[in-house]
Amino acid sequence: MTDQPSTTDPRQSARSWPDVPGLLYGGDYNPEQWPEEVWAEDARLMQEAGVNVVSLAIFSWALLEPREGTYEWGWLDRVVEVLHGAGIAIDMATATASPPPWFSRAHPESLPVTEDGTRLWWGSRQAYCPSSTSYREAASRLAGAVAERYAAHPAVRMWHINNEYGCHVAHCYCDASAAAFRTWLQARYGDLDALNTAWGTAFWSQRYGDWEEVIPPRASPTWRNPTQQLDWWRFSSDALLELYRAERDAVRAHSDLPITTNFMASRFKPLDYLAWGREVDLVSNDHYVIGEDPAPEVELALSADLTRGLARQAPWLLMENSTSAVNWQPRNLAKTPGQLRRHALSHVARGADGIMFFQWRASRAGAEKYHSGMLPHGGTDTKLWREVVALGAELAGLAEVTGTPVAASVGLLWDYESWWAVELDSHPSQDVTYLAAVRQVYEALWRKGVTVDFVHPEEDLGGYDLLLAPSLYLLTDAGAQALDAHVRTGGCLVVGPFSGIVDENDHIRLGGYPGALREVLGVRVEEFFPFAAGVQHALSEGGSGRTWSELLHLDGAQAVRTWADGPLPGTPAVTRHRHGDGTAWYVATTLDDASLGGVLDDALHEAGVAPAAPVPAGVEVVRRGDRLFVLNHTGEPVTVAGTTVDGGGAAVVQGG
Amino acid sequence: MTDQPSTTDPRQSARSWPDVPGLLYGGDYNPEQWPEEVWAEDARLMQEAGVNVVSLAIFSWALLEPREGTYEWGWLDRVVEVLHGAGIAIDMATATASPPPWFSRAHPESLPVTEDGTRLWWGSRQAYCPSSTSYREAASRLAGAVAERYAAHPAVRMWHINNEYGCHVAHCYCDASAAAFRTWLQARYGDLDALNTAWGTAFWSQRYGDWEEVIPPRASPTWRNPTQQLDWWRFSSDALLELYRAERDAVRAHSDLPITTNFMASRFKPLDYLAWGREVDLVSNDHYVIGEDPAPEVELALSADLTRGLARQAPWLLMENSTSAVNWQPRNLAKTPGQLRRHALSHVARGADGIMFFQWRASRAGAEKYHSGMLPHGGTDTKLWREVVALGAELAGLAEVTGTPVAASVGLLWDYESWWAVELDSHPSQDVTYLAAVRQVYEALWRKGVTVDFVHPEEDLGGYDLLLAPSLYLLTDAGAQALDAHVRTGGCLVVGPFSGIVDENDHIRLGGYPGALREVLGVRVEEFFPFAAGVQHALSEGGSGRTWSELLHLDGAQAVRTWADGPLPGTPAVTRHRHGDGTAWYVATTLDDASLGGVLDDALHEAGVAPAAPVPAGVEVVRRGDRLFVLNHTGEPVTVAGTTVDGGGAAVVQGG
Amino acid sequence: MTDQPSTTDPRQSARSWPDVPGLLYGGDYNPEQWPEEVWAEDARLMQEAGVNVVSLAIFSWALLEPREGTYEWGWLDRVVEVLHGAGIAIDMATATASPPPWFSRAHPESLPVTEDGTRLWWGSRQAYCPSSTSYREAASRLAGAVAERYAAHPAVRMWHINNEYGCHVAHCYCDASAAAFRTWLQARYGDLDALNTAWGTAFWSQRYGDWEEVIPPRASPTWRNPTQQLDWWRFSSDALLELYRAERDAVRAHSDLPITTNFMASRFKPLDYLAWGREVDLVSNDHYVIGEDPAPEVELALSADLTRGLARQAPWLLMENSTSAVNWQPRNLAKTPGQLRRHALSHVARGADGIMFFQWRASRAGAEKYHSGMLPHGGTDTKLWREVVALGAELAGLAEVTGTPVAASVGLLWDYESWWAVELDSHPSQDVTYLAAVRQVYEALWRKGVTVDFVHPEEDLGGYDLLLAPSLYLLTDAGAQALDAHVRTGGCLVVGPFSGIVDENDHIRLGGYPGALREVLGVRVEEFFPFAAGVQHALSEGGSGRTWSELLHLDGAQAVRTWADGPLPGTPAVTRHRHGDGTAWYVATTLDDASLGGVLDDALHEAGVAPAAPVPAGVEVVRRGDRLFVLNHTGEPVTVAGTTVDGGGAAVVQGG
Repeated sequence: MTDQPSTTDPRQSARSWPDVPGLLYGGDYNPEQWPEEVWAEDARLMQEAGVNVVSLAIFSWALLEPREGTYEWGWLDRVVEVLHGAGIAIDMATATASPPPWFSRAHPESLPVTEDGTRLWWGSRQAYCPSSTSYREAASRLAGAVAERYAAHPAVRMWHINNEYGCHVAHCYCDASAAAFRTWLQARYGDLDALNTAWGTAFWSQRYGDWEEVIPPRASPTWRNPTQQLDWWRFSSDALLELYRAERDAVRAHSDLPITTNFMASRFKPLDYLAWGREVDLVSNDHYVIGEDPAPEVELALSADLTRGLARQAPWLLMENSTSAVNWQPRNLAKTPGQLRRHALSHVARGADGIMFFQWRASRAGAEKYHSGMLPHGGTDTKLWREVVALGAELAGLAEVTGTPVAASVGLLWDYESWWAVELDSHPSQDVTYLAAVRQVYEALWRKGVTVDFVHPEEDLGGYDLLLAPSLYLLTDAGAQALDAHVRTGGCLVVGPFSGIVDENDHIRLGGYPGALREVLGVRVEEFFPFAAGVQHALSEGGSGRTWSELLHLDGAQAVRTWADGPLPGTPAVTRHRHGDGTAWYVATTLDDASLGGVLDDALHEAGVAPAAPVPAGVEVVRRGDRLFVLNHTGEPVTVAGTTVDGGGAAVVQGG
Repeated sequence: MTDQPSTTDPRQSARSWPDVPGLLYGGDYNPEQWPEEVWAEDARLMQEAGVNVVSLAIFSWALLEPREGTYEWGWLDRVVEVLHGAGIAIDMATATASPPPWFSRAHPESLPVTEDGTRLWWGSRQAYCPSSTSYREAASRLAGAVAERYAAHPAVRMWHINNEYGCHVAHCYCDASAAAFRTWLQARYGDLDALNTAWGTAFWSQRYGDWEEVIPPRASPTWRNPTQQLDWWRFSSDALLELYRAERDAVRAHSDLPITTNFMASRFKPLDYLAWGREVDLVSNDHYVIGEDPAPEVELALSADLTRGLARQAPWLLMENSTSAVNWQPRNLAKTPGQLRRHALSHVARGADGIMFFQWRASRAGAEKYHSGMLPHGGTDTKLWREVVALGAELAGLAEVTGTPVAASVGLLWDYESWWAVELDSHPSQDVTYLAAVRQVYEALWRKGVTVDFVHPEEDLGGYDLLLAPSLYLLTDAGAQALDAHVRTGGCLVVGPFSGIVDENDHIRLGGYPGALREVLGVRVEEFFPFAAGVQHALSEGGSGRTWSELLHLDGAQAVRTWADGPLPGTPAVTRHRHGDGTAWYVATTLDDASLGGVLDDALHEAGVAPAAPVPAGVEVVRRGDRLFVLNHTGEPVTVAGTTVDGGGAAVVQGG
Repeated sequence: MTDQPSTTDPRQSARSWPDVPGLLYGGDYNPEQWPEEVWAEDARLMQEAGVNVVSLAIFSWALLEPREGTYEWGWLDRVVEVLHGAGIAIDMATATASPPPWFSRAHPESLPVTEDGTRLWWGSRQAYCPSSTSYREAASRLAGAVAERYAAHPAVRMWHINNEYGCHVAHCYCDASAAAFRTWLQARYGDLDALNTAWGTAFWSQRYGDWEEVIPPRASPTWRNPTQQLDWWRFSSDALLELYRAERDAVRAHSDLPITTNFMASRFKPLDYLAWGREVDLVSNDHYVIGEDPAPEVELALSADLTRGLARQAPWLLMENSTSAVNWQPRNLAKTPGQLRRHALSHVARGADGIMFFQWRASRAGAEKYHSGMLPHGGTDTKLWREVVALGAELAGLAEVTGTPVAASVGLLWDYESWWAVELDSHPSQDVTYLAAVRQVYEALWRKGVTVDFVHPEEDLGGYDLLLAPSLYLLTDAGAQALDAHVRTGGCLVVGPFSGIVDENDHIRLGGYPGALREVLGVRVEEFFPFAAGVQHALSEGGSGRTWSELLHLDGAQAVRTWADGPLPGTPAVTRHRHGDGTAWYVATTLDDASLGGVLDDALHEAGVAPAAPVPAGVEVVRRGDRLFVLNHTGEPVTVAGTTVDGGGAAVVQGG
């Protein structure tokens, strides 16, 4: 089957959505960077571009509250009226993204501290400790004040809490953070005996005898306790989530409008956005392609599908992307003709009900002045402005897409705790990393025209014909049971190397790897045999593996690929196990792309999964609602589903 | 024309020069490292080598003032007499280059602090904060005491203030530096509103409400404010200059002899030597080639021409270079036969009226013991000693060169503020850097035998037929007007990419790039298109560009080179604009060397500039006064201007 | 000659050896990581594997002394009885390797500080300053308490002090360390004048006027004083040795059993193990191969031979190695079939009278859980367990080897002070490093089947036909005289580049390099000519040199290899000098391996040294007592001394 299991409108299941008709279109608006006379021109040009919403006041703290407790609303009131007059809806920010210098100077203990004890200063942005009481109180107070002032204004349709939580300071190692960490651990473990057991402190004489001895994983002579580190990742995500909740509650006290904060899925590791996704009224995401990525459209698609997963397959909002170059990469490549449009349509195809940019008008000063905007330094007589105007018009014509579901019958298992755990230090090979494993499997399916949902192993897996677990190092008993049940009841499962190895405390599951998945995979692994840097070894069936191999015994499974050379010639590299009514595959190495594609073809076939449409190389297809999105990332025209699409072009085909 | 516009003796315009006949020849002399019985041998060997001047007491603080306020002059008095007896002139240092351990221990607040708060300790050298009051007072006191004692001694002919200011500590981030930075900013901006505007603090909630909130760009979560950083570079150069002035004034109170301090042009970025050049009686410079540079002679020539520019084309003194290897590079390559001589003659050809070395006698202990000296560890029965003696004799024969001008009719625009600004973070591409751009253009001309003067865009540009601006990112209105006037009145101008982009506050000049040069270049650029790492794209006329391209519209200019492929096929890569009576070229990429050479050939032809002499590859020619210097850096003999020069050799041809 | 000069049983000269018959076999045992019910299974499986000794309680501080002064012996008493009941001997640790969290919290001043002032925290292991009084007192107290409790227990046969001293914290820069450094310097130099002379503080105004001014080489603006750095290495090794002595003496007060602490020769630089070797009753060593080393067996052999040298050629104990992969390399390669056995036999062949592993049972939690054990996560139905059992049985059959000497008539000169000195900063080339030079010469001989003893130049050199000095930068007068005497009396000597350059204070020996060896080598060097990165130059006799060349004059020696190109064509690269009754060779570059092999062939021939047996490539042969060990590291069968050995296999041939 190629249809989404549920036929209900996912928009219905989104907890709420801002009251703006059609697809949202707009960007961050920072009028304080410009003379007041520019604002009217902004509003006029927004109308010309089809903008229907802007995010306002994200970095306005220093202007809104120039001294502690003193508010200056006048200028913002005037901006709101200008926008309202032009029919532009407002996503109003709580203005707390970066505390002003006066705050940091008055509350120096709120400044973040790195793991080696370096205090970070103001002068850039986000210079606050996530566990700072003074910051939390000041931010909540300002959030409440903003909400109180603007809750009733008809232009305001939603709330934007803070901004990209943790993007620069995801962890703080100060004494206040240490105290908060202890409180969090007490809630998790109850008593020190439980912590000592979970952290395995019998190792290296690490046993804690008093809660006050427990500290963050600060700079230390060598590898810090791995479970301490894992809990530190958990705590740090929760510490920022607590900040979010405090602001959200301060806003909710004044308004029932939808509330969000902008995520940074896909490459951002510190926040467990699956947990965060439950705390927002609608999921919004910021995504920027890496210009030097050989296939930025694949990484973009991954981000969009993942964001939909964080929204539990409901529509979501692309809160930020760029019209062209950004400013923070080593080389900030501009978008080539057509890229802006294809990128926006890929997001829409994958569930976005709005496309917004950082930012409306490119800055003339500051650290982001070379970040492209909707309105570039060169003004309106530019290619970029014309593309922005054209995109606004095109999206206006796609209003019917809003709320429709994205079709996917393949689930890709995603888990932040597994990401954190698999990349801890002192592991068998530093070449086994989370995103690389996910990306390779994701890209193989993207190239086949197969769309995936991102799902957590302990959430609802029903309705997926095929589950992929490219990297699931940490797996709880419940997660393992869910995968087993999926296969026993007729599902297909493909597991990547170094999965199912540890429990939630990062303790090895003994008796042969992969402890949590031995039975479902029908294999038993004695030992890991990682490869030296850059080495690959041949498979008997053709192709090769790199990075990793395993001394693997078949225990019910059959060998599908076998090593021709390397440290373990003749032993299995890929296995397939009939288990209950389904099948479980184990890919015990990093296959070359073609070999992986072959294994996945077999698994797709076995699971009865077909692509959204047959596609030539470099063409992206996604089915959403009754539309087929065809995005041609090649330079040559292609014909897909009877429609010819120019090189670099795109088509949205009804029925399709 | 190929002659220097002014025919007056530039020596006349030098504010002063030490009273030593002929070219200066000598080096740093550190007698305190050797038993007193060695001093007489030193004096005798100096005479044998033709040494007529040495720099004395540069690192003698600990011996001259072994306890605060207690001086021990005796040993230095004896050294002075030994030298005087041998007829060696003395460049007497103020002995303040490195405070002794007792000073640092007594004044720990004088130790420098890095941007992450690390305090640096004594145990090496130069361990002081540029804004330290205790250091400034102690150094000035010692400088005055030295001057008072030796001002009247006939052997002393000039003063050497401190040593290589900032070579290890150019910036300090301590609280005293923060206070000094605020004072400097108050002088620059008057009030906080002006600072907030200049720094663009509406961005990221950075507005300052109290002067005490303003701090150095210390370690911070992400990119610090760019204008804050730019002002930090300005302030840091000025802070050290203030130290220099304090010592200089303390010396001047006792003596009218010429005063200098040794610069480190060409690769040293922190000091605005154009400003420093106005504060010394004669410009002196330290230069060391990078052994692994594929063409060290080019970088040496650049340094020499730049130093002449810092001296406003007057003669200058090479205060330090090395007879052979240094000690501070990863691999310290010794000079091959002939290199010592060619290097010295290149400096003389380019305006040096003296060649001095670090150091007279190679040390046997300490961090610089593997730095070559005039007298090596191996003694006088060595190739090196013989070369040193021969060079001394040869320079004695070139006394008539002193004071004569170097012929150049091409000006290369050099600006430290532009250097600082163009290399700030979060720019379009990290591959666009200052020295690389300057070096490529400089080297192209060096290979053609064309000598350039280094000039600042806001100083006198009269008399140059051709101006080159390989990298002029920051350009003031006055600078832009000067370039415009140069072209309108018949001059030729060649501009490199990413020039004319921002004003003195690092604010973008809006309305299309390059804002300050749009009119003179006759182009309008919408957007930058940097290339991925290592990428180059072909030009329709042959050759290629790397690093960078621009979406460029002709606005009066004509296209001279056009992109054949890359992100912008068919658009211009190099343009030429007839503007008033002159011509302005825009090279909107990093051309390959051959293509750049071709463009420059056309510009040179257009400007009527001919080389000093036609040269084969690898041969350097410079005209100074009535001499033609021919330096053969190849292994084969060449004939230039009728003179045959052996491989590795050199000739100074009268008339030529 | 190919026999060891002494025919006495070296075991006799070992100060003592634990009372365990035959070769020791076992590993670290950490029962506190497992439930008590596992202990009996451990004992049973140890018997199955032939284990006769385990190291116990290395990281048990937190459990043995859970609060200051409160001991809990019960659990350890029970472990001791379980082992005793199974006939397993105990190497009892003092449990001081890592202080528990309560200790560090109670004594924060005991935490180590890096050179930039960063305090390191607990949470990993070994978080203590080597000069901490509180740590030394607490560790000694615990060591005494452990010894007091278990000295009389019949299962306990030896003591294991602490663990891998300095492996993470070899240097601490805190104020207590500074004070201890001053005390150490006062003992070395007596007064400040002597220190000032030795450190050459006339350089850079570094003269010390008060002992309180003397500090560790903390972070500083640039290169710290080289002699200060060299003394810092000396002091740091001694500071840890003082800790060892304190624990040892506390144990000795209760027991006369042999005492050791585990070294980490070969790659570990901070400790002068030649000095440490005099302080232990038997030398024990930990060695782990680097999986990505192209020839790990060579580095292993080097380590084993060096360890024998630290034991002054007496038998020694391999206290730790791994059965397969470790956890701390970037990619932890598992051992391939046969490697475990070959590695163990190589150690035995080279003097080990015991083979022990870290650790008995692979951990399920903590930073070392991916370190292989004797009993892997997969249990006993594994290749690894079977290999461990088989090795135990094989070693039991080799009991007669214990105490027999290793045959070697070549001495390789090894000196930690030279290592420290040659790798100080600001040297002619960073490519000239200690281990690389030693490894190249060692490997050349390994491949020829020639075994070497590691010896210090100032210890007994009698009986060696050939001495090799691949890197002996620092050489005292006594050392130089010993080498001279060796050659004059008929010995052969081969010296590598940049040897004999400085005295014990790191002062250059003047008058031409290599000052200490000019006479014995019959050469005089004017100047070093290091090469640029990656460069090599040809020799006239074929082959090439890289890294380095010298402007060298023959002063009695003859040229054996000559530069064909490079900076010094026609000058000597390798020389040979008949001196007295012997011959001294000078290899004044880094030869390619084949050329070095040729030079060494000539020197071996000249010295009359033959290999243990003629060997094909990749086969290792060593003669110990009356056995010939043949280790086949290739994949193909080979026949050596009439015995055929399978690919990957090994044989111990009696007579041979």
